[in-house]
Amino acid sequence: MNVMVRGKLRHFRTVDFDAAGNAVVLIEQRLLPHRFQRVWMGNYQETASAIRDMVVRGAGAIGATAAYGLAQGARAFPGKGLPSFERHLDRVHQVLASARPTAVDPVNALVEVRKAMSGGRTVERQQELALEAAFEFGDRNVDECRTIGRLGAHLIGNGMTVLTHCNAGWLAFVDVGTATAPIYQARQEGRDFTVLCDETRPRCQGATLTAWELAQQGVRHAVIADNAAGALMQQGRVDLVIVGTDRVLARTGHVVNKIGTYTKAVLAHRHGVPFYVAAPVSTLDWTTQDWRAIPIEERSQDEVLGAWGATPGGRSRYIRIANPGSPALNPGFDVTPPELVTGIITPAGILKPSELPHTK
Amino acid sequence: MNVMVRGKLRHFRTVDFDAAGNAVVLIEQRLLPHRFQRVWMGNYQETASAIRDMVVRGAGAIGATAAYGLAQGARAFPGKGLPSFERHLDRVHQVLASARPTAVDPVNALVEVRKAMSGGRTVERQQELALEAAFEFGDRNVDECRTIGRLGAHLIGNGMTVLTHCNAGWLAFVDVGTATAPIYQARQEGRDFTVLCDETRPRCQGATLTAWELAQQGVRHAVIADNAAGALMQQGRVDLVIVGTDRVLARTGHVVNKIGTYTKAVLAHRHGVPFYVAAPVSTLDWTTQDWRAIPIEERSQDEVLGAWGATPGGRSRYIRIANPGSPALNPGFDVTPPELVTGIITPAGILKPSELPHTK
Repeated sequence: MNVMVRGKLRHFRTVDFDAAGNAVVLIEQRLLPHRFQRVWMGNYQETASAIRDMVVRGAGAIGATAAYGLAQGARAFPGKGLPSFERHLDRVHQVLASARPTAVDPVNALVEVRKAMSGGRTVERQQELALEAAFEFGDRNVDECRTIGRLGAHLIGNGMTVLTHCNAGWLAFVDVGTATAPIYQARQEGRDFTVLCDETRPRCQGATLTAWELAQQGVRHAVIADNAAGALMQQGRVDLVIVGTDRVLARTGHVVNKIGTYTKAVLAHRHGVPFYVAAPVSTLDWTTQDWRAIPIEERSQDEVLGAWGATPGGRSRYIRIANPGSPALNPGFDVTPPELVTGIITPAGILKPSELPHTK
Repeated sequence: MNVMVRGKLRHFRTVDFDAAGNAVVLIEQRLLPHRFQRVWMGNYQETASAIRDMVVRGAGAIGATAAYGLAQGARAFPGKGLPSFERHLDRVHQVLASARPTAVDPVNALVEVRKAMSGGRTVERQQELALEAAFEFGDRNVDECRTIGRLGAHLIGNGMTVLTHCNAGWLAFVDVGTATAPIYQARQEGRDFTVLCDETRPRCQGATLTAWELAQQGVRHAVIADNAAGALMQQGRVDLVIVGTDRVLARTGHVVNKIGTYTKAVLAHRHGVPFYVAAPVSTLDWTTQDWRAIPIEERSQDEVLGAWGATPGGRSRYIRIANPGSPALNPGFDVTPPELVTGIITPAGILKPSELPHTK
C-alpha cells in the first residue's frame, strides 16, 4: 500500500524480492509506528532471522517471506550438481520452517515452492522455477486480499463507523490485508466513513500498526481502549465490525483470532451490529472438529505487565505498568462461536459460518 | 489496611488526620505501585492541592480528605471572632470544593462538617466539632465498607476465581474499599481463592492499585488484559464478578462505573457468572430517571495513546504507544443496565437492582 516517505506517497509491499540483489525486502515492523524503514535480507539465514525476530509478522506475510527465502537460498547455490543442490535446499527449508515453529503459513509456502521446483531438470532451471513460484505465492496472496476487499466493500456505506480489532492489515500480508481490504476498497470507491481501532492490549497492534496503516492511506480513524467498544455500541456509535482471523474451523464455523475478538462479537450480537470475519483460504482449518481442541498460546506475562512505546524523545522503551511482583495471565487468542458471526468474507464469497465447505 | 513497610506489616488508612500536627495524612497514590509513601498536608491549601493533583483519588477517599481539610482549615484560624471565622470557613470550603469540581463526595462531606459545626457557640467549640465531624465522616466510611464486606463475603467460596475491574479498593476509600471488602473479609474468614484484576486501560488502576493492594494483603491474584476476561469466562475460569460504582440510579438500577464494566457485565450474563456491584450509600443517585442523561466524561486522548509506568531503573515515565498523529476517543465511564446485575451489595443488604429504595 501507499506510505508517505519524505513527503512523497510511494507504494510498497510488506514483503518483496529484489531479484538482481537476491534479497528479500521487508518493512522493519518493530520500528512502526514510530519509524518507517525497509530492510534488505541478503541471504536466507538473515531472512529466517527476520521471521524469528518479528521484523515481519502476520500469517500471510511470513508465508510469503518463507517462499522468497527459499528461492533466495536456492539461487545462492553456486554449483551444478543436483544431489548437493537437494541437500542444500533441505537445509534452507529447515532453517526457514523452524523460524516460527507454530505457524502453518511458512510450512505451506515452502512445500508449494519446492513442489514447483521439482519439475526442473537442472539446478539453473530449478532456481528459475523457485523464483517464479515465490512471486506467484506473493501475488496470489495479494489477489486474495483484493478479492476480499471487492466482495466486502459494499458492507461499508457512507457515514458509517467500522470497528476493527488487532492488525489484519496489509502489514500482516503481502499487501492490502484482509480485515482492512474492504476498508481500503470502500475508500477507493469514494465513500466517507470512520474506523475505530481497538488498541488491542497487550501488544497494541491496533493502536500501532492498524492506526499507522489507516493514517498512511488517509482513512479517518480513532484509537479506543479495548474497554470502550461496549459503551460506544450501546450509544449506537458502531455500525459494523470487521476482524481478521488466524484460523476458521470449516466444519463448525468457529473463528480463532487475537484475544478480545470474542468479547467484541458478544457485544456486537447484543447490539445488533453486524460482525464480519475476513478470511483468506489459508486460514481455513479443514480437520479440527472441536474448538476446545485448539491450543491457545499462553504468551509472556511481560506483555500484560507492561507496554512498549516511544519516549517523547523518540526512543523505543518498555515500561512496567503493573504492581511489581504481581503475576499475569496472557492467553494470546480466543474463539468466537459461529452464532455470533454474521458472515465470513472469503475470496470465494461472503458465507455464513454454516455455509463454509467442509472439505478442501 | 496492612502494608509491608521495611519488612514489617503495618496498618494505615488511605486518609488520616494528625490532630497534634493539624495535618491531613495521605498515601501518595501517584507513586504506587512502584513506591509506598505517606505525605503530610500541613494546611488546607495543600490538602486541596492533593485532591486536585490526585495524590488521593477515589470517591470515598476524596470525600474524607475534604472533611479533614475543612477541620484542618477551621483549626488553623487564630482568632476568637465568629464573623471573621465564618468568612475564613467560607474560603476554606470554597478552595476544597473546587479541587475536583465534578465529584459529589467532597461537596457532601463539606456540607456535613459545616452542619455539625453550626451547633458551636464559640470558635474554639466549632473547631472541636469540626474535628469530631471529620473523624466521624471517616469512620463511617470505614464502617460502611466493613459492612459491605461482611454482607458480601459469603459470595466468595473456597477455590473460586473472582474478577474485578478498576480499583474500588481501600485506596479509593478511607479503608477496606467496596468491591474489595468482601474479598478481604473472605480472606480473613480463611477462605482460599484467586482474584483476577482487569488491568483497566487506559489508566490501568487494576494492574497498578488493585494488584498492589491485593499483594499487600496476601490475596492470590493475577493481572489480565481487559481483552482476556471473555475467553476466561468461556473456559469456565471465572466464578464471580465484583465491581465498584461511581453512581447507581436508585430508581432504575443502572450502574455507572469505569469504562469496560458494561462489557464485563454482558460477558458475565452470557456465561451465567454472577455479577455484583458494591455500592456505599453515597453512590446512590435518587433523582436521575434516565441513564442516558448521565454525563459521561470524555477524558484526555493521551491516556489511550500512551501509558504511564516505570523504567527498569524505577523511573516513572509516560510512553507513547499509538501511531503518532492518530486521535483517540476516551469515554471514562459506562452504564450497566439492571438486567445484567445479579445484586448490589449495599450496607443495608444485598439488593436486586429493582429492590433499591426509590427515595432517600
